[in-house]
Amino acid sequence: MPIEYEKELKVTETGIPGLEVIDLAVHGDARGWFKENWQREKMVALGVPDKRWVQNNLSFNEKRGATRGVHAEPWDKLISVATGSVFGAWVDLRAGSATYGRVYTCVLDPSKAIYVPRGVGNSYQALEDGTAYAYLVDAHWSLEQKRTYTFVNLADPDLAIGWPIPLEECEISEADRNHPLLKDVKPMLPRRT
Amino acid sequence: MPIEYEKELKVTETGIPGLEVIDLAVHGDARGWFKENWQREKMVALGVPDKRWVQNNLSFNEKRGATRGVHAEPWDKLISVATGSVFGAWVDLRAGSATYGRVYTCVLDPSKAIYVPRGVGNSYQALEDGTAYAYLVDAHWSLEQKRTYTFVNLADPDLAIGWPIPLEECEISEADRNHPLLKDVKPMLPRRT
Ligand SMILES: Cc1cn([C@H]2C[C@H](O)[C@@H](COP(=O)(O)OP(=O)(O)O[C@H]3OC[C@@H](O)[C@H](O)[C@H]3O)O2)c(=O)[nH]c1=O
Ligand SMILES: Cc1cn([C@H]2C[C@H](O)[C@@H](COP(=O)(O)OP(=O)(O)O[C@H]3OC[C@@H](O)[C@H](O)[C@H]3O)O2)c(=O)[nH]c1=O
Repeated sequence: MPIEYEKELKVTETGIPGLEVIDLAVHGDARGWFKENWQREKMVALGVPDKRWVQNNLSFNEKRGATRGVHAEPWDKLISVATGSVFGAWVDLRAGSATYGRVYTCVLDPSKAIYVPRGVGNSYQALEDGTAYAYLVDAHWSLEQKRTYTFVNLADPDLAIGWPIPLEECEISEADRNHPLLKDVKPMLPRRT
Repeated sequence: MPIEYEKELKVTETGIPGLEVIDLAVHGDARGWFKENWQREKMVALGVPDKRWVQNNLSFNEKRGATRGVHAEPWDKLISVATGSVFGAWVDLRAGSATYGRVYTCVLDPSKAIYVPRGVGNSYQALEDGTAYAYLVDAHWSLEQKRTYTFVNLADPDLAIGWPIPLEECEISEADRNHPLLKDVKPMLPRRT
């Protein structure tokens, strides 16, 4: 997919409080291109929360159609695409949220990032072979932490996510095939303080 | 290039003080793979400096052979590859360093990262089409800061970097073609405190 170059850095609301889409400036030249995925000073000035990221993760998707999610995790995330593109779907799974169950979807290519707050479920489908998906998180992952995730099923008709590639044709992990329906989900509680 | 999976996280010295190579654990599965590029807790425990990264940058290289550098910058960096692979070359350009002018080279694929301290010159050559090179830095870039870089020429015979692809066949920026030879470089001074 062709990338739009030299966008202005911009933050856009999504209808789910705290979930924010960020336009990134990608600078093209004869070698390829360069971008800043996270730029603390400029992004914080535009309203992105000021985070100390402690992990930078990367998931690589061999084939178009690989689909992962829906995972609501106990930390905040900033997600972007290194190469390729994804269709992303986010679901508000926060206990007590006025927009509980609401879904937001959009395509992320290298010129677009998204800030996903704790408790908003995250999922994506690779739209190109060789899609590299990168993210920053503000707490350390562990198997124990994973037990505190809230999951919902990618195929839940109540979510009605319009996956561009039918899920039956997609590479999906065994775990992700077996998540509960929204009606059976236990919402994620606020962080204990 | 095939990636080695499930390496143990490990930090190795390079002969240039502060320049450290890091083996990363890449977890493969039917979808592709997953890795932690930066894991503060585990890496700091192994001796990697504890940084607050303020930028996450990505440079994408369309074609095998794209070559960038040599740039010594006034901040620390943690570099890794999202997809593809690079031949990297690092040159100690720190004023007063016992290893001033020393070169270290290695191939970085997704299973290997490198921590590059302030004042050590950085350069790389993409070994595959579509190589995405990602890094974290602990200070904000700006055009003013760029004027404080120390540069040295990729082709300097005194460095004698064994580029796998001859530089005449490579895509190189105009700026990078014109950097001085090591003998004419003004070494990078320690940070004013
Ligand atoms: C998230 C994570 C995972 N892992 C390991 C565990 C497995 O060996 C491997 C893949 O883990 P999965 O739980 O299968 O991850 P995945 O289904 O890809 O989901 C991940 O990508 C999509 C994201 O929504 C989600 O944050 C994240 O859990 O990586 C780590 O070592 N560190 C991590 O931070
Ligand atoms: C480093 C940097 C660059 N840019 C812009 C300026 C240009 O429009 C474009 C490319 O910049 P170059 O100076 O040409 O970068 P490049 O030659 O690719 O070098 C970069 O990649 C190799 C790295 O060694 C080095 O850190 C970094 O300067 O990106 C930014 O907007 N932010 C940055 O942090």
